[in-house]
Amino acid sequence: MKNIVLIGSGNVATHLGLSLVNKGYTIKQVWSKQLKNADILAEKLNSTSTDELKNLKNADLYIVAVKDDALEAVIQQIKVNNILHTSGSIGLEVFDNKCKNYGVLYPLQTFNKEVSLDFSKTPICIEANNEMFEKELLNIGNNLSKKVVKMSSEQRKQLHIAAVFACNFSNHMFAIADKILTQSNIDFKLLLPIINQTVKKLNKNKASEVQTGPAKRKDKKIIESHIKKLSDKETKEIYKLISDSIMNKND
Amino acid sequence: MKNIVLIGSGNVATHLGLSLVNKGYTIKQVWSKQLKNADILAEKLNSTSTDELKNLKNADLYIVAVKDDALEAVIQQIKVNNILHTSGSIGLEVFDNKCKNYGVLYPLQTFNKEVSLDFSKTPICIEANNEMFEKELLNIGNNLSKKVVKMSSEQRKQLHIAAVFACNFSNHMFAIADKILTQSNIDFKLLLPIINQTVKKLNKNKASEVQTGPAKRKDKKIIESHIKKLSDKETKEIYKLISDSIMNKND
Repeated sequence: MKNIVLIGSGNVATHLGLSLVNKGYTIKQVWSKQLKNADILAEKLNSTSTDELKNLKNADLYIVAVKDDALEAVIQQIKVNNILHTSGSIGLEVFDNKCKNYGVLYPLQTFNKEVSLDFSKTPICIEANNEMFEKELLNIGNNLSKKVVKMSSEQRKQLHIAAVFACNFSNHMFAIADKILTQSNIDFKLLLPIINQTVKKLNKNKASEVQTGPAKRKDKKIIESHIKKLSDKETKEIYKLISDSIMNKND
Repeated sequence: MKNIVLIGSGNVATHLGLSLVNKGYTIKQVWSKQLKNADILAEKLNSTSTDELKNLKNADLYIVAVKDDALEAVIQQIKVNNILHTSGSIGLEVFDNKCKNYGVLYPLQTFNKEVSLDFSKTPICIEANNEMFEKELLNIGNNLSKKVVKMSSEQRKQLHIAAVFACNFSNHMFAIADKILTQSNIDFKLLLPIINQTVKKLNKNKASEVQTGPAKRKDKKIIESHIKKLSDKETKEIYKLISDSIMNKND
């Protein structure tokens, strides 16, 4: 399965495509709804581009790495065998009765086109509709990453929800902190050691057991004074709700 | 200022005390409300212990590292010169008219007694009521850490609020993720690469500019399906509020 058509040109498609080419795979074609985006990624991957799903080239494998809310519509328009998607949220059953061999290859990572990362450290979750195809996907997964696990659609969905909290929501907490500091003319970089220590603790400790801060101490006076100082209603609400949640966990 | 009395025996007092002793300072005495806690820390610091604020020994410097909600009451009972507190939330003015030289030495870090850390990488924020004492505190700060900054009470309070979001709240996001995974029998360690990448991005990028996930993509179908799958009302509310906040930022 060395010849691949890549359907998608976003963050996941970009990093997955680059990593596959790096490992000796050939991306025969890149599809994107916007031809310009397909062109940009195709150039990076030494590939060709199209914006027509009915003009896909013959290949050993078709990888659909499009936004979750576009996935089903894209799949409806493709008549191929050996197909997989890369979504954490969408089950294997999205391919049911559409082809013989299908699966999921979910790389558990936060991808930004412009930010480099070490794909070999990205866990990959594999699922397939038959043993033969599962073996193919495990093979590809093992070429890309040191950590490949088989996982059911139901487990993968839970993992994706957990990743939203652990990655997307924690990043938003960093963004709020950044906004507060910018308003006070303080360098965000001052926070990097405390953020690094928070994450380092996770290697050996359960997060709930090493929680610190005013909410952990149930210091309601400080909590009130912080909420008072925040400038917008939404951030006040977030502060209050998360502090309450930390306090509830420590009853 | 080599002889210090340490008032407090919690997470901050423990790490600060250990770091001071490491740098050649003498902790003459440790006070705690619970004599047992003073004993435990005093043993680690090769010091003596007391639970009586009126029996404090003579020293060059008194460091008050108690919970924020106890700070004022503790200070009321101490009649000494050369005193500082270690709180991010409480202003310098808590010492006003109580002694000649006073200040703040705020180490911006998440401290757990049982988790080791490199104090030299912990930023220290300094404030004092006069230049002479400020110089003393800068001197101590520079002995303990590579990053010492002068900061007003008002800026320090904003920094503390930002740190609550960046550290305490992000850690709670990790705790929620852990709970979701535990319920589904999935190893939390699978999330460490995505968490590490999220934090690594902060070295070169603004958090708001490298946000990823369903809310960033405004994928309301996935957001709804995630909220539906969460087991308790509070976690649903947190998911909804933070997702809304991410979506608002990307209008």
